[in-house]
Amino acid sequence: MSDHVRIVEVGPRDGLQNEKQPVSTADKITLIDRLSTTGLRSIEATSFVSPRWVPQLADAAEVYAGIQRAAGVAYPVLVPNEQGYDRALAAGVQEVAVFTAASETFNRTNTNAGIDESLARFEPILQRAARDGVRVRGYVSTVLGCPYQGEVAVSEVVRVARALHGMGCYEISLGDTIGVGTPRKARAMLQAVAAEVPMQALAVHFHDTYGQAVANIASCVEAGVRVVDSAVSGAGGCPYAKGASGNVASEDAVYLLHGMGLQTGVELEPLAEIGRWLSALLGRPTGSRVGKAMAPT
Amino acid sequence: MSDHVRIVEVGPRDGLQNEKQPVSTADKITLIDRLSTTGLRSIEATSFVSPRWVPQLADAAEVYAGIQRAAGVAYPVLVPNEQGYDRALAAGVQEVAVFTAASETFNRTNTNAGIDESLARFEPILQRAARDGVRVRGYVSTVLGCPYQGEVAVSEVVRVARALHGMGCYEISLGDTIGVGTPRKARAMLQAVAAEVPMQALAVHFHDTYGQAVANIASCVEAGVRVVDSAVSGAGGCPYAKGASGNVASEDAVYLLHGMGLQTGVELEPLAEIGRWLSALLGRPTGSRVGKAMAPT
Repeated sequence: MSDHVRIVEVGPRDGLQNEKQPVSTADKITLIDRLSTTGLRSIEATSFVSPRWVPQLADAAEVYAGIQRAAGVAYPVLVPNEQGYDRALAAGVQEVAVFTAASETFNRTNTNAGIDESLARFEPILQRAARDGVRVRGYVSTVLGCPYQGEVAVSEVVRVARALHGMGCYEISLGDTIGVGTPRKARAMLQAVAAEVPMQALAVHFHDTYGQAVANIASCVEAGVRVVDSAVSGAGGCPYAKGASGNVASEDAVYLLHGMGLQTGVELEPLAEIGRWLSALLGRPTGSRVGKAMAPT
Repeated sequence: MSDHVRIVEVGPRDGLQNEKQPVSTADKITLIDRLSTTGLRSIEATSFVSPRWVPQLADAAEVYAGIQRAAGVAYPVLVPNEQGYDRALAAGVQEVAVFTAASETFNRTNTNAGIDESLARFEPILQRAARDGVRVRGYVSTVLGCPYQGEVAVSEVVRVARALHGMGCYEISLGDTIGVGTPRKARAMLQAVAAEVPMQALAVHFHDTYGQAVANIASCVEAGVRVVDSAVSGAGGCPYAKGASGNVASEDAVYLLHGMGLQTGVELEPLAEIGRWLSALLGRPTGSRVGKAMAPT
């Protein structure tokens, strides 16, 4: 098993998407450009969803056009449908991400479509992307619980992950959207999916709502996953629990992985510095405990 | 292996000891009395160290005299030496805790004594406690790193834990005082100690300075430990990293353990409510992410 873990930095997209404080286009570009210097190899840059849904990311095309794309770094963007894919393609993106939930209720509530409808909408995107030479990542959300229906069957997570992989997603990110998971459940869910989709094509994506994200990453890494999503400074809150913690902080995830003897290629001190800068921009203390501990006194 | 984990609530002592905001004797008593209603079976009540060292806990005797000692709940107190033991005994305590570091430099810096001197000072306390029918817990600090000397040899942790157990401590709490540990190292340290001291006589005590505490608890619980120290609301900072996180929050530890299918006997919602009350008293947001997520909106 490789001792290298790839961090997918989702702060500029999943983080900012859930932050109320407006961030200027220039600051978003600075954020991504600074992250590009830390050794990160995947930085999710923005989202081509409708600006009506996510006003914070209405400047997706400007952000993508403004960043310095570093050699060897991927800058995926989120696309909800073919219109989003069209806009992303026009902006020159080389990688996109599609998303659906494992919870039928969640998917219907958030996207007005059932899971199978979402999957059907992705088919033409995957087909076009294959022709366009664009890589596609797939997100499965609510893999360990749903704010509406509660329990989510592992069999549904497996089914959705297998479908996305089957239609050509090179990687499936398994997301605990509301952060309710704990290590044994997270590992069991991962292992169930890995029985159907190769572990090398899987990523884990934990939110820290209940303080379990670092523990869940440790448990899943022990079980063999080698791709971890995280957001610098723990950006992003939880729309289902006001005041709750957001994405797991990249700094805390990198500290964990290095401490476990794994490599990420990411330099921790500059990453923590970027996290403190971003938090100051958002007008709040960093959500990264590493970021706090490493702060100059 | 038992599926019951005992939480040792250290907020009133280890938490408050590191909080600058003064807390009144009445509020300390309220804190402990409220904690006694949550199902906790061990609540470290205070410390009979010199008030010159820890002014926040100068009212140890008043606090101990003021609390309602619930049936079936232990209220250990910290004692640094025989004078402390005398004061604790006069206050009527039935359980005390002694402490030393695994790092020679740390012990000399903090107590003006080498590890072996500290151990020698505990001998008469243990002998008197045996005659007095007082139970003694032993703390080993800096088990995964030292703010002064950096690395701490696992062999030193084992040696100190074995010495404390050998002189009669019924339980040895292994403390990552500066919160630098990660799951694999924590587990390896625990297993090394457990090769010399029975696992049933061991506890783990993690600080969340680098966001690793919940992951370390999960890892050590998987390895067999069944006693976990924690502090409601994550009270207590870190004197070695300004602004850093303190003890692991009891709420987050209990959430983890219940999610892992283990029992603690502790009711999470009232515990989280007490954590938010304590944080408000200390003039800051709760350090428990569970406490934030469960807060009424």
